[in-house]
Order: sequence, then structure tokens, then C-alpha cells
Amino acid sequence: MTRKKFTVAGGGPVGSLLAILLARHGYDVALYEGRPDSRETSIYQGRSINIALSDRGWTSLEQIGVSAEAKADAIPMYHRAIHGIGGEYSEIPYGVEGDAIWSVSRGGINEQLLNLAEAESNVVTHFQHRLTDVDFATARAMFQVKDDHEISVDADFLFGADGAHSKVRRLAHNFPRFSYSQTCMPQCYIELNIPANADGSHQLDKNALHIWPRKHFMLIALPNPDGTFTCTLFLDYSGEPSFESLDERSAVEAFFETNFADAMGYLERPVDVFMEKVPSPLYLVHVFPWSFNRKVALIGDAAHAIVPFYGQGMNCGFEDCAELNRLIKQHDHDWDAIFPAYENARKPNGDAIAELSKRNFVEMSDLSGDPMFQLRKMIEAKFSQRHPELWTPLYSLVTFTPEIPYSEALRIGDEQNRVMQEIMALPGIENDWDKQHVMDQLLELASEALGDGQ
Amino acid sequence: MTRKKFTVAGGGPVGSLLAILLARHGYDVALYEGRPDSRETSIYQGRSINIALSDRGWTSLEQIGVSAEAKADAIPMYHRAIHGIGGEYSEIPYGVEGDAIWSVSRGGINEQLLNLAEAESNVVTHFQHRLTDVDFATARAMFQVKDDHEISVDADFLFGADGAHSKVRRLAHNFPRFSYSQTCMPQCYIELNIPANADGSHQLDKNALHIWPRKHFMLIALPNPDGTFTCTLFLDYSGEPSFESLDERSAVEAFFETNFADAMGYLERPVDVFMEKVPSPLYLVHVFPWSFNRKVALIGDAAHAIVPFYGQGMNCGFEDCAELNRLIKQHDHDWDAIFPAYENARKPNGDAIAELSKRNFVEMSDLSGDPMFQLRKMIEAKFSQRHPELWTPLYSLVTFTPEIPYSEALRIGDEQNRVMQEIMALPGIENDWDKQHVMDQLLELASEALGDGQ
Repeated sequence: MTRKKFTVAGGGPVGSLLAILLARHGYDVALYEGRPDSRETSIYQGRSINIALSDRGWTSLEQIGVSAEAKADAIPMYHRAIHGIGGEYSEIPYGVEGDAIWSVSRGGINEQLLNLAEAESNVVTHFQHRLTDVDFATARAMFQVKDDHEISVDADFLFGADGAHSKVRRLAHNFPRFSYSQTCMPQCYIELNIPANADGSHQLDKNALHIWPRKHFMLIALPNPDGTFTCTLFLDYSGEPSFESLDERSAVEAFFETNFADAMGYLERPVDVFMEKVPSPLYLVHVFPWSFNRKVALIGDAAHAIVPFYGQGMNCGFEDCAELNRLIKQHDHDWDAIFPAYENARKPNGDAIAELSKRNFVEMSDLSGDPMFQLRKMIEAKFSQRHPELWTPLYSLVTFTPEIPYSEALRIGDEQNRVMQEIMALPGIENDWDKQHVMDQLLELASEALGDGQ
Repeated sequence: MTRKKFTVAGGGPVGSLLAILLARHGYDVALYEGRPDSRETSIYQGRSINIALSDRGWTSLEQIGVSAEAKADAIPMYHRAIHGIGGEYSEIPYGVEGDAIWSVSRGGINEQLLNLAEAESNVVTHFQHRLTDVDFATARAMFQVKDDHEISVDADFLFGADGAHSKVRRLAHNFPRFSYSQTCMPQCYIELNIPANADGSHQLDKNALHIWPRKHFMLIALPNPDGTFTCTLFLDYSGEPSFESLDERSAVEAFFETNFADAMGYLERPVDVFMEKVPSPLYLVHVFPWSFNRKVALIGDAAHAIVPFYGQGMNCGFEDCAELNRLIKQHDHDWDAIFPAYENARKPNGDAIAELSKRNFVEMSDLSGDPMFQLRKMIEAKFSQRHPELWTPLYSLVTFTPEIPYSEALRIGDEQNRVMQEIMALPGIENDWDKQHVMDQLLELASEALGDGQ
């Protein structure tokens, strides 16, 4: 029997992980990446780009049998470090003692996974091969090699792991009954930098995700191992203030001085960078189906491009891989069964994390600077400690509870919202929040709403 | 001063009407259509294809100064003719005495508008010119001529009036901050035919839109001037029953015999047609922006492809033209002002009629076969007669009240729904529906919800 052959389009972290798992199930895998190999050519132009990984990502890697080497270089962030507009500072833990989200280098984890993929004898990788066409009936694909000639690649199946701007997805537009949406968010972003101290140490607490919440906009900073922080300014594209309205240097200076006075001592040439850079848009992408003719399928950002406000994008892509890994075993390599089971299992979770991520902008940029929000977090934390069987805060469900799917976390979170709205509306809640009668009422409401094992 | 030049991509009814209005404002217009000229080559393969026109369409034509020649050939439909599953028959008027929606031949109105466009000295039309590319910065377009050579066409502005599958819209996907969605509906459709009697008369009441509502699916029939009816069967793509599940001739026969027994005497070879035809999908398309660089814009189905359940698609496209006509005067040919004003005025209405059309499938296929729905219509009609200042039924708002925008009709309809839910929940409403206390309560609720001039 000849081994079935897979084409994987896209050599990012998800495509690399997919190649590993398929190879370990005995398939031949050819992985094609449009860009040069970052291990040979710096494609990041010297910039550190970090992403958040958390329990869902680590768990998925473990399930596939990839030892989490990446964790050695990752920096745990145990709390949100909130920088108020007047320089006031506070911390909100992400979960209970020891819970952390991890700042990892995108390039680093990608290269580790590529190395692991190439260590499999039945994986071949090709860089600077840009996908130009897919035959959805046969899984044949065309690739442009180094802007020179085109090649045709036959396979039994093809996965589009080619990211938020997926070409495979674009080519699927003519597929019958194809539903698709891309929604441009009001916010855009630019990246800024906080350099390391002279001794290579971090200028700010390195074990935190720093947030300067300013209601309709915000600055965040994630630590890198080299002592720097990668910062992102999220700001509306138009309106007041916005990237569009801040078109004069003096106005940009005033904007930073007014809103980020305490960060000005750390940020590297923020006004220059603001004036030079074209802000990047943020999109939510929904698509269905995720699989075509049981020959071609989408995975990772290609299937569910989301906004970065929950730090879950790569985690969700790794979960897609872990689900496939499970289904290959469950359906004993019957891809007629695996493809529909895969999209039915993962589509609701892709939709749920898209919705949760969109909502989390408000939480990060507005509520985390709001004393009532911080009070709510304290009440939830206290109640959750007393009744862990009844209440895990939504953030923890999403981030630290991989056994609960995103879609279930979203449903529970909505119930929690209804309960907490009633609690936060109690007269005098600011003073009484830790009194017994508040906890009793919360117990009653929570048991009613979430009693059936959440 | 040289006259500004417009390229209009798409020679359907909306593109033709747009060419007329632009020409009458003094612009040079070149209209390009990918298909052959239907006046010379039959592109409808002998089939009558009809569409519904109603007051918004006629009013828009009048505002642009196009005398509604098409109305002479159009057939007024004054009521819904409801065919029950056991052969029972009932009629529900569309509005008050004299209100009608009109069944018009798509080909006929298109040809009349093309003739009017060509009668303008500053309009040139080109058929079998298929759009291949648009430069959104300059409004230059490329057309493939009869599958032979390509030409480049310069203009000051370009309109994409190229329909539900708009190429201009497809090409706009790379435009920054472009939002787009296409949602495939669960239903698909095939067209069937009811032939004329031997004397050329209609076999069924010709002044009605016939509906065979079967809850999750339905058959409808619209009259043609030649005595035939064009029928459409809307049925789920998958599930039970569906186009997918009905794959054997015996099952299709049983499906028609069970559900459309009374229509079987009229329909022409329905089982054969069902077995032969590939069902067509139904899409809702949302897009934003509608204009690009103040050089290129979308209009008609290209901007708002909707489902056919409200019979408003062409009406909405004609309204787009009428709005442009108004804005050209208001902004005195300043297209930097006209484009944003156009999309801001029309986008909310495109969204509203998309939503209304989607909802109307349920109304047509389910509720119109439901005695409580018919009762609700009677209560609304009676109340509306007594208090026309307070209540115009939603269907009439959408269809017979062009002075109320679609978006406002949607808002009012939602308020009416809330009110009527309370009324229909009154104990004994089936018997008491025309009693004074019901009308009094409706007056109270309606005044509260809709008192501010609706």
C-alpha cells in the first residue's frame, strides 16, 4: 500500500505542527511556504515578534507528542500590570497562584517546530514556493517557485495552513455554497519598542503583560527574552483621536504626553514611529465550510483569523491540530469521516474565540482601567476560591481550562455576566463586596444559572 | 470644460438606469456588459424570468424622469393566493384596495431601459465586454472583448453595477479596511413552469402571487404576460426533505404528490425538472465600503445581494439610482461629497432590506399557512384602517411606502412585532380579535411604542 500524501500550504507554527502530526501518523507530507526560510534569512527584520501561548497551546503540543521546548525560552506573565493615566499602577492576576500566560517568540517557536518537522523522515519542506492555485476536486496545487517558474504538486489531500490572508481560502470562494466574512475592526495598530537596560535586563516588570488602558484605545507591552518589550498601540482608524486625525507631529506629541506620560521614558522614539508607520488593520474572518470535497481543508488562522485581544490565535490553531490528531485515531484514517468531524468539532470553537477576542478589547482597554471592573474581578476571585465547582472566571476558562471548549466557555461567560450584573447592581456593593450576604446571594444566583456542573 | 466620463460595468436594469441618469446630468457614459445584447441574442433560452417591482421601483424611475413604460406590460398582483396542503385555498391582500406588487419580465424592463440609455446622445454601450480588472486609484478598467483581446478603458469614475456576483466587488477585496460577507442560506431553489391554457389565458388567478407554503419549504408562482407562470421551489439543500435527500425519482414523485397535489395538474414535468436541474444557492452579501478613493463605487446587487423573499432586489437598486440622482443635484456634481453621502445614505437601507428579506422566508413559507398568522394580519389590517396615523403593516411599509426608508421600516416592524406578540397572547384572541377591548389594548400599546409619528 502506498502511503497517502498530504500537501501542507503554509510553514508557520500551525502548518509545521500539522506536518509533524501527519508524519507521525505515517503520511507523506510536503510542506510549502511562500516566504524564505527564517532559519537562513531573517524575515523579521531584526524585530522581536511575540505571541501569547497558554494552556490550550501547551496541552495541544503535548497531545501531539511535541515536547514543549519552546517553554524554556518563554516568559511567564502572571498578571496584568495596569498603568493609569496619572501614573498610578495596579496589578490584576490572570488566575490563581502560578497561572500564567506565556510570551513566546513567534520566530523561535516556528523554527523549533520546523526543525521537528524536518526531523521526521517523511516530511519534505520547500520555501519560497508561493501557492497560486488549488484544484479542489483532486487536491492538486500550483506553486510559483522564487518568482521564477511554476510547479504542479499532486497529493491525496491538501491543508491550507496559510494564515489570516490564506490563499487556499481565497481560492475556495467559487466553491458552491461557500460562506465567508471578513470584518474590519474600527481599531488599527502599530508596533513600538521598549529597549532593554544596558545590562540586558527589562526596564519594566518582565513577568507581566503591561496595559495602558485608555478606554477607546490602549497601549500594551509583552516581554522578550532579550530584555526588550514589544509594544502595540491599538487606536481607532478614524474619529477622534485616531490614526487619521493625528496627522501632525505636534498633535502626536501631545497625544503621547497626555495619555502615556509614564511610558515616554521607556518607549523608543514613539512619535517618530507613529509618524513613519502605516497602521495595520485588524480583521475577523469567518468561513464555512472548512473542508472541500473531503480533499482540501483549512486550519489555523486560515479557518479563523481573529483579533489578538485574548492572546488565543495560535492556541486555537494548535487545538485544531490536536483535534485532528484525535480524529485520525478515532476514525482510523478514514478521511471521509475525519474532515466533516473536524469541521463540525472546530467551527463552533473558532466562532466562539472570535467573539470572545472581539469582546476582550473592551475588557482590556476600558474595563481594566475601571475600579468597578477590578472590584468585579475581586468578587469573582473570592467566590471562585470558595466555590471552585460552581465558578471559574471566564478568563480562566478560556486561558487555563483547555478541557472546556471555547464554545462552552463563551456560554458560561454569558451566564456569569448576567449573574454579576445583578451582583454589581446591589446598593453599597463597593463597601459590602466581601460581606457574607453578597457571597450568599451570588451563591444563590450562580447555583441557579450554572448549577448543572457549570 | 471637458465632460466627466463614467464607466458603468454591468448592463442590467440598474446599470442601464444609472447610465440614463448620469447622461441626463451631462456626463459621458460608457456602459459595458459581459453578456451578449439580449435584444439581438436570446440569452434567456426561451424562459420567462420575472421579478417583482413595487412602489419604490416605480417611484425611483419617476424621480429619474423615466416614464414607466414597463408598467404597461406588468401584471399587478393584489393578493397572496395561499394553496394549503389539502387543496384548501385562501387569499391575503397585500395592502389596502388597489395596492399591488407587479410581476415584470426581467428581460423586458432591461431592454426598455437599454433602449432609453442608448437614446441619450452621451451614452455608448458595449456588449460581450467582460470586466477583468479595475485600478481603484484611477478608475481605469480592463475588459476582455468576446474572449479575444483585452482593452483598457479610462474614465473619471467607475460604477460596478455588475450584479450579485460583481467582479468590481471581488476586485475590491484587496482594498484596505475592506469588510465583506457572503452567507449561503440553507435553502436552494429550482425554477418550474406552469404553461398557459390553449387560448393563451392563465390556468390560475393571474392577479395573485401564488404560494404553496409548507413550513420549511415552499413553491411560489408569478404570472407572465404570455399566460405562463414562472414557479420557484425553495427547499433546503440538505436535511430532510431536501434537494440532497430527494435523490431518487420515486421519492421526488412522492414528495410532489404529498405536498403539491393540487399543483400537479398545472406544473410542467415537475419531477423531470427536479431530477435534471442543479439547484441554485441563495446568498446574502454585505460589503463596506461601497465607494473606493472617491473614484469607484458599487450599486444595486453588487452592493447588496439579497434573497428574493421580499421581492425588493431591483426596487432597492433603483432606489440607489434615485438617491444618486438626488445627491448629484444636492452636491452640485461634487463627487468628493456625493460618494460618501451615497454610501452613508444607502448602506443602512441595503442592510435593512437584506434582513427583512431573510426574515420573509419564514413569513411566506411558514406563517402564511398558519391560521394565527392570518388572524394577526386581519387584526393589523383592521387596526390600521382605524388608526392609519399609528399603524401601517410592515409589508405595506416596505412595499407601498417609499417615503419611509427600509431601515426605518425595519425598526417600526420590530416595534410592531413586540406589540402584536402581546396582543396575540391575549386569552381567547381567536374569538375576540375584532372586539373593542382588543382594539383598545392595541391602541394603548401602539401609542406607547409607535406614538411619535410611528
